[in-house]
Amino acid sequence: VFNEDAATLTALLEPLHAADIADLIEQMGEGPRSDFLALWGDNIDGEILTELDETIREDVIAALSPEALTEAVRELDSDDVVDLVEYLEEDQQEQILEALPAADRIAVEEALSWPEESAGRLMQREVVRAPEHWDVGQMIDFMRAEGQELPEQFYHVILIDPKLHPTGYVALGRILASPRRTLLRDIAEDSFRTVPVDQDEGEVAYAFNQYHLISVPVVDHSDRLVGVITIDDAMAVLDLEAEEDLLRLAGVHDESRVTDSVWETTKLRFPWLAVNLVTAILASLVIDQFEEVIAQLVALAVLMPIVASMGGNAGTQSLTVAVRAIATKDLTGSNVLRVIRRETAVGLLNGLAFALLMGLIGWFWFGTAMLGAVLALAMIINLLVAGLAGILVPVLLDRFNIDPALASGAFVTTVTDVVGFFAFLGLAAVMLL
Amino acid sequence: VFNEDAATLTALLEPLHAADIADLIEQMGEGPRSDFLALWGDNIDGEILTELDETIREDVIAALSPEALTEAVRELDSDDVVDLVEYLEEDQQEQILEALPAADRIAVEEALSWPEESAGRLMQREVVRAPEHWDVGQMIDFMRAEGQELPEQFYHVILIDPKLHPTGYVALGRILASPRRTLLRDIAEDSFRTVPVDQDEGEVAYAFNQYHLISVPVVDHSDRLVGVITIDDAMAVLDLEAEEDLLRLAGVHDESRVTDSVWETTKLRFPWLAVNLVTAILASLVIDQFEEVIAQLVALAVLMPIVASMGGNAGTQSLTVAVRAIATKDLTGSNVLRVIRRETAVGLLNGLAFALLMGLIGWFWFGTAMLGAVLALAMIINLLVAGLAGILVPVLLDRFNIDPALASGAFVTTVTDVVGFFAFLGLAAVMLL
Repeated sequence: VFNEDAATLTALLEPLHAADIADLIEQMGEGPRSDFLALWGDNIDGEILTELDETIREDVIAALSPEALTEAVRELDSDDVVDLVEYLEEDQQEQILEALPAADRIAVEEALSWPEESAGRLMQREVVRAPEHWDVGQMIDFMRAEGQELPEQFYHVILIDPKLHPTGYVALGRILASPRRTLLRDIAEDSFRTVPVDQDEGEVAYAFNQYHLISVPVVDHSDRLVGVITIDDAMAVLDLEAEEDLLRLAGVHDESRVTDSVWETTKLRFPWLAVNLVTAILASLVIDQFEEVIAQLVALAVLMPIVASMGGNAGTQSLTVAVRAIATKDLTGSNVLRVIRRETAVGLLNGLAFALLMGLIGWFWFGTAMLGAVLALAMIINLLVAGLAGILVPVLLDRFNIDPALASGAFVTTVTDVVGFFAFLGLAAVMLL
Repeated sequence: VFNEDAATLTALLEPLHAADIADLIEQMGEGPRSDFLALWGDNIDGEILTELDETIREDVIAALSPEALTEAVRELDSDDVVDLVEYLEEDQQEQILEALPAADRIAVEEALSWPEESAGRLMQREVVRAPEHWDVGQMIDFMRAEGQELPEQFYHVILIDPKLHPTGYVALGRILASPRRTLLRDIAEDSFRTVPVDQDEGEVAYAFNQYHLISVPVVDHSDRLVGVITIDDAMAVLDLEAEEDLLRLAGVHDESRVTDSVWETTKLRFPWLAVNLVTAILASLVIDQFEEVIAQLVALAVLMPIVASMGGNAGTQSLTVAVRAIATKDLTGSNVLRVIRRETAVGLLNGLAFALLMGLIGWFWFGTAMLGAVLALAMIINLLVAGLAGILVPVLLDRFNIDPALASGAFVTTVTDVVGFFAFLGLAAVMLL
């Protein structure tokens, strides 16, 4: 398709949604991407830029002519511009801010003054609001007068008192279904909540999902209305948070993408592998203590990875359920003791089941009943410890305000490896020699 | 708080959102929960029931009196009833369906005829639609006449032609901002898409997130409008899908919750541990082949878990990124070859880095340069294989329509364990003895 035919290319891309074009650009290799941008880049619009992954967005912006960039940015709403520039290098950020009309620039700069990942960064400042004493007729007349000036997407009118405090909100559907004389206050939704401007965006997204919100007013420290967050932005945040937990649990940096370059990927993965190396060496030091035991009975070396591996897996199971439950607030102070008791019981039960299985396998494989017994006992101990570590480690990390998704994995496998090898080889030393 | 004081309890729970009350019920132990239900159960409303986790919902419904249940269910919209009953046991389902007015019951039964997890199950049948030739004035008059009959939440009016085919939709905000004479067709949104009734709900949720949709019309096989899906339902699905991927990757059944009982949890976790046992035994069989080598040099037994563990971790890293990219459609046929090349390169680079590290550690620990060299080579081979397996396994499973989140983990760790032990011990046999 790459015959330097800009017209055909434009015709092909015309019917596509901005998000799809952004995906196409992301999936290109670096060579084709720069060819593509040289050919078509100046047709790019602001929406495509906001849909791009951050690392690729920087490359694309760098490849655009200043005029094309200015034009692309001017079409966007303030929250989209914030989204676009917040993680850019300073000079690119400067370049885009200068392209904006003065009023928009001030709005974006103010939004950037809120902490990263806060409601203030997520909200749009364009709000449709009305004094709380208005009726439906006044509201409709007001909106008709505003016409094109209204935000592109809005679902509620926010009622405010004279001090700009939001006091309720009215769904557009209710306004349309009510006679002109109806007071807005009388058709306001009964579930009304606001969000402080510095609240974490993850909390905001959680509230949207928990309470089935569509849009929520954002208030500053004196409870005045400063903006509104809509569900589509909250949905994107929820999706990203879930992705972060998934990647962190696997020991991958939470901004890892299939589109990263080889060098970036290598750098992002190295630290976790290094952590794992340290924990693996710890486990090896345990084995090292039992060198003489193994020298006398090599079967131990053959079987010991089984105990460690089963413990690691059981630990990961209870860990993952716990991390998810902490993220969705299903695991709280009021049920944590019960969940710990449950994990202990589950560890014990599965420990018994696999002890029986492995005891028999060890016995028949090496013809020594005692070896089977050692294997069985080690299995019970390690699955019990795995269950406990899987719940205790994330809960404790969360208490100390450390993200349990990030750090739990390393702790839990260290515990299960060390305990697994120690229990198996230690029992073998006592019972077999 | 549990002094059998129903009035105080009601006063306490009154201001809470249904979702929060449901969370409270979920976090209670089984004993307190049945006390609570005996005391307050008959005040429960339908919304609380829909917010409960499935396993607990069954218990709660069983504890309610038939009258309380009937009353709770009658308040709900058709899509909420579907949500409520679709995973219930047949007799409970029957009981709830009988509590519904005839028209609602037919609607719910029709919805249940669509496949599980399809758009048909997710959609609500209450749709606000209008002939495409209407103007704003006609639309507003129609809605005022309908008044309370309109659905509680809606954000668009769907335009239909005389054959009931949807042809576009209009945001309520646009209707409110336009003069009465404006034709609806002229203010319709330019991004318009529909969803077939049997589409998978995960696909629907993906489309909402990708295209920033708020609501989307659902059509049957002859392209006629049958319902509408709103973003709040799509958001809940997106959240659940992310949870499923997370839990499946950790080898936990995707319906595992911290609220499950000990016995359920044990049963749900056993199968994956059993799979892991088989793969661990496979790895042990490899070690078994080298029993004599280990007997001659026990240091090998001390170091071999390090190679396997590093491989397992590197495999999990590339696997998790790949599974997530497949779920978000960032990994497609057009870039899969490039991503495979990248994983190979990353595996090689990190393999070299850790080969150097481990080579030195092995050398100094055991004072044998050759042992360090064996360790280094095994590390390169295993990290390379781990990177490749981490991408190839999920891609291949996806090609065969097997959920990569579900099955990849076991395959990848088997590969890295087997290759890790074989490379390390095999090289040792050749180079050291």
